[in-house]
Amino acid sequence: MKTDEQYMQLALDLAASAKGKTNPNPLVGAVLVKDGVIVGSGLHRKAGEPHAEVHAFNMAGDHAKGATLYVTLEPCSHFGKTPPCANLVKESGVARVVVATQDPNPNVAGRGIALIREAGITVDVGILEKESLKLNERFIHNMLTSRPFVVSKFAMTLDGKLATHTGHSQWITGSEARQHVHELRNEMDAILVGVGTVLADNPSLTTRLDNRQGKNPIRIILDSQLRTPLDAHVMNTEEAQTIIAVSKNVDLHRLSDYEEKGVKILIISKDERGLNLTELLTELYKMGITDLLVEGGGIVNASFLRAALIDKYFVYIAPKVLGGKNSVTPFAGANVETMDAAERLYFDDVSKFGDDLLIIAYPKKVTPNE
Amino acid sequence: MKTDEQYMQLALDLAASAKGKTNPNPLVGAVLVKDGVIVGSGLHRKAGEPHAEVHAFNMAGDHAKGATLYVTLEPCSHFGKTPPCANLVKESGVARVVVATQDPNPNVAGRGIALIREAGITVDVGILEKESLKLNERFIHNMLTSRPFVVSKFAMTLDGKLATHTGHSQWITGSEARQHVHELRNEMDAILVGVGTVLADNPSLTTRLDNRQGKNPIRIILDSQLRTPLDAHVMNTEEAQTIIAVSKNVDLHRLSDYEEKGVKILIISKDERGLNLTELLTELYKMGITDLLVEGGGIVNASFLRAALIDKYFVYIAPKVLGGKNSVTPFAGANVETMDAAERLYFDDVSKFGDDLLIIAYPKKVTPNE
Repeated sequence: MKTDEQYMQLALDLAASAKGKTNPNPLVGAVLVKDGVIVGSGLHRKAGEPHAEVHAFNMAGDHAKGATLYVTLEPCSHFGKTPPCANLVKESGVARVVVATQDPNPNVAGRGIALIREAGITVDVGILEKESLKLNERFIHNMLTSRPFVVSKFAMTLDGKLATHTGHSQWITGSEARQHVHELRNEMDAILVGVGTVLADNPSLTTRLDNRQGKNPIRIILDSQLRTPLDAHVMNTEEAQTIIAVSKNVDLHRLSDYEEKGVKILIISKDERGLNLTELLTELYKMGITDLLVEGGGIVNASFLRAALIDKYFVYIAPKVLGGKNSVTPFAGANVETMDAAERLYFDDVSKFGDDLLIIAYPKKVTPNE
Repeated sequence: MKTDEQYMQLALDLAASAKGKTNPNPLVGAVLVKDGVIVGSGLHRKAGEPHAEVHAFNMAGDHAKGATLYVTLEPCSHFGKTPPCANLVKESGVARVVVATQDPNPNVAGRGIALIREAGITVDVGILEKESLKLNERFIHNMLTSRPFVVSKFAMTLDGKLATHTGHSQWITGSEARQHVHELRNEMDAILVGVGTVLADNPSLTTRLDNRQGKNPIRIILDSQLRTPLDAHVMNTEEAQTIIAVSKNVDLHRLSDYEEKGVKILIISKDERGLNLTELLTELYKMGITDLLVEGGGIVNASFLRAALIDKYFVYIAPKVLGGKNSVTPFAGANVETMDAAERLYFDDVSKFGDDLLIIAYPKKVTPNE
């Protein structure tokens, strides 16, 4: 007989396997246990498909009666693409429900738990809550801010350089780290670079996985003056969607050349730092983009930094020292005067990919960005 | 009954406790084992004091007969400040000797082992050899190059910045990491900075430990034009010795002002990068300096980097992102054109001090710098 934590960990592991596939929905796993036997299990695989609880109850059939349900997120109480799971739970005959964390979705927010309790079923909340919140950091951020979860990713030498003064950067990291970046792209709805990166490197920003088909994120180019060349790789919209964010000052007659090629143009107002990034993120979220990988360069990175819009950092460090007084560093932008101006983070994890390190960090905030 | 590896690990642990105290000698530990009981143990505590084997045999007395000696470095075969340990081993009556690694000192280099074998004693070499070589990386480098072992140390934000464009850097890292730097200074013979750091920060470069008396390293200032102010903190030679390395072009009449304050002036020739660092290191080694902590700034760091004279890196990374296009980075110097110009390293260790990370790296070379 395992503990509540062990069954919940199993439900979390089931849920995590669909990372990047369930957007805009959360990752949810469920396990039904009766007399020490797992009589049902399931996870939410994809938006529009059944919720985790449905799969678990389908598997369990009559065995659900008297069982304990472990579920990583509060069962939903509203009619979405599927009927409310809370009703299903009530009717299933389970004796007890263990929930990792309440659903931050304002349409649920405790109502699912209340409905189940009203039916006389014991509900315990908070088992592996921290792990569940982390698994669904993207979803929770979405619910609380109505903006995509923004991940800043860069690869640098041990002395903090992205490229030489000429922009040469191929390759800083080894193949394992570069492959991991493609795994990251495969999990994200969108990827963003500045037009400077398009002009310098002409990247395609697609997902290339070694051994299976990847999902290309939507490409977003910050390009206030619409300088993206019409023959740039990102203009190939058969490969992946492309959105170019421009300022109101752009000659509107020029837009059709881009739109004819299938590119979507977003007109965004400007603030003292350039395109208003909060407005951009709000627009992107309305378009269904729930997370966004920011891949630079240094000025774009600094714009997101100064606007306090970065929610997570993926920093690959190669075992190299480059030097050079004009070599390119990850965050540029306006000068800062004192060390107190630095954004404070906390280190979440350090891991190794081949010879390189990956440091994962979060802004040091008690609550997500508002 | 423990294994050879376990007894050797014990000997290595004994040896390591004297780190920084035995210079110019190596760190050596010894354990004598008879019938599963440790009958003698010892380590080399300080140059001029007895070798590890002597302490172990003194403790063991008659119990050494028939015992196995575990020693982390080949017993010496030459008369130094103490008589050769190989003779002592021969006369001790031990049945077997286990040696982690041969002594790279050209005065020993296998002769100690040969002497013991000639007496009919079994000698096994190479148990935990890698660990022993690492423990004595400084000593081995000294023996092979006749230069001090050079450690580059810097503290940066996660985006590779040492300071803002004004030079403001207090504090990047937290108190635990800063305390660890003082532990590092306490183990080193000397510390080196450029005159730019003296002019900007006026550091004292002394060792300040929380709970015990530290050893101040000898301070070395790279100052080709002799611009160190006579009232700089490093001019206080009652606290710690100071050596200023100047070029031949300096007005010799000015030297006496410095020498009167107890500062030693080293006149070093110049090459295309500034003061000839190989010549400087050779001179410092002749003066008995076996290791050297290079604490920057960026131009000094780059000079050591380009001369391929850095033997180890200690990089503290604070959980902060600073940004700013003119913020100071760890290695500056002449521009480099392509990423291939980067010095290749390998990561040896990552550890945490408070909220900060410490990455330890080595140049990726099969043999030490020549």
